[in-house]
Amino acid sequence: MSGAFDVVGLDADDTLWVNEERYRDGEALLGRLLGGRIDPDTLSRAVLRTETRNVKVFGYGVKSFTLSLIEVAVELADGELGGEAVRALLNHGKWMLEGPIELYEGVAGTLERLSADHRLMLITKGDGFEQSLRVGRSGVEHLFEAVEIVATKTPETYRKLLERHGIAPERFLMVGNSLRSDVLPVVEIGGHAVHVPREITWAHEVVDESSVDRSSFATLGNLAELPGWLADR
Amino acid sequence: MSGAFDVVGLDADDTLWVNEERYRDGEALLGRLLGGRIDPDTLSRAVLRTETRNVKVFGYGVKSFTLSLIEVAVELADGELGGEAVRALLNHGKWMLEGPIELYEGVAGTLERLSADHRLMLITKGDGFEQSLRVGRSGVEHLFEAVEIVATKTPETYRKLLERHGIAPERFLMVGNSLRSDVLPVVEIGGHAVHVPREITWAHEVVDESSVDRSSFATLGNLAELPGWLADR
Repeated sequence: MSGAFDVVGLDADDTLWVNEERYRDGEALLGRLLGGRIDPDTLSRAVLRTETRNVKVFGYGVKSFTLSLIEVAVELADGELGGEAVRALLNHGKWMLEGPIELYEGVAGTLERLSADHRLMLITKGDGFEQSLRVGRSGVEHLFEAVEIVATKTPETYRKLLERHGIAPERFLMVGNSLRSDVLPVVEIGGHAVHVPREITWAHEVVDESSVDRSSFATLGNLAELPGWLADR
Repeated sequence: MSGAFDVVGLDADDTLWVNEERYRDGEALLGRLLGGRIDPDTLSRAVLRTETRNVKVFGYGVKSFTLSLIEVAVELADGELGGEAVRALLNHGKWMLEGPIELYEGVAGTLERLSADHRLMLITKGDGFEQSLRVGRSGVEHLFEAVEIVATKTPETYRKLLERHGIAPERFLMVGNSLRSDVLPVVEIGGHAVHVPREITWAHEVVDESSVDRSSFATLGNLAELPGWLADR
């Protein structure tokens, strides 16, 4: 293997395909179902509070989110919850799982280019069932040497994963949209990281940016710049 | 390793601890929330139909079941669904995940005895997050050399799992309550199985018993009989 890295790890949600937008769509739907009586900030805070509490019981993913939205609906509808509203939230959850996977523009071509001279690994956090369905339907699974669905993305997660695959941290590059999950823990264990930020980041993934040493990783505006960046290493 | 088997695999739900009863409790709760207007058979059929449809989208587990119960509630309440009913179903789902794990009588002692002279592996199907929480809270995790949470229990699942752990099928014994998931697929790949039936079996797990060759595996009335049975091999 030539080049600076033996393996390039890529995050999936909001790095390869649209994800967080679908969650925000669900929240907006709930707002409409409540007849617009709740102002958007209050609604967002209620959803985040419920999600944060429920993630300990239900874990991450669409089912957990859908249950949280239904719980917020019950709470905010103040006894006037209609069956149709609950049904609409259930249908939104199903659509999030069954609807088309929307790869960001250029992702398929970029992955093809990368896979020609790098071993690629998909490393995604979340519900195992939901994520494996998504990966299977993404149309890009065949470009990855391995797919890892993990419950958390801590330094320990990456350390164990690299050990299991026999990869030295200093020969590993991780690429993703989340500083908290894709970048900082990899840098912490002596690996390399490229941050590809998105406009929308889930509140759980936000870190205090003032504490982040931006010289310890690279930042690219678009995943399409990655093959060129790698060619310069 | 002496004895007939190198590794003993054990199913968890309804083999080590109470599970299916909690699901039936949820269904009974839904019946009460609907004011007893729906006869129990009709309700059971509606729940099973919805679960079967939703398992393809949501997978197995408590979150999937809770979403299905809420969907049936919307369907059968005929526009008269109260927020309190939805809240009660959500709370039941949380209780299924957070409530105490009820090991069957004698299970802890039996596992201690078994682990003294056998390598034990817990092999459970379901939602990865939910099952790993349960296993962690069961108080018996330390008795198992490995814990495997799988999406399905097909012959292929067992074949891959044994291969990954370097176990020859003819030296492997699987023990569980489900003919479909714990017994027949293991026998099919040349392994051994002990069936420990429970009174309640989830409709999805029921097989046509007339087609089953009962001489190809053992049946025990209670898990506590397993150490004695093993001593006779």
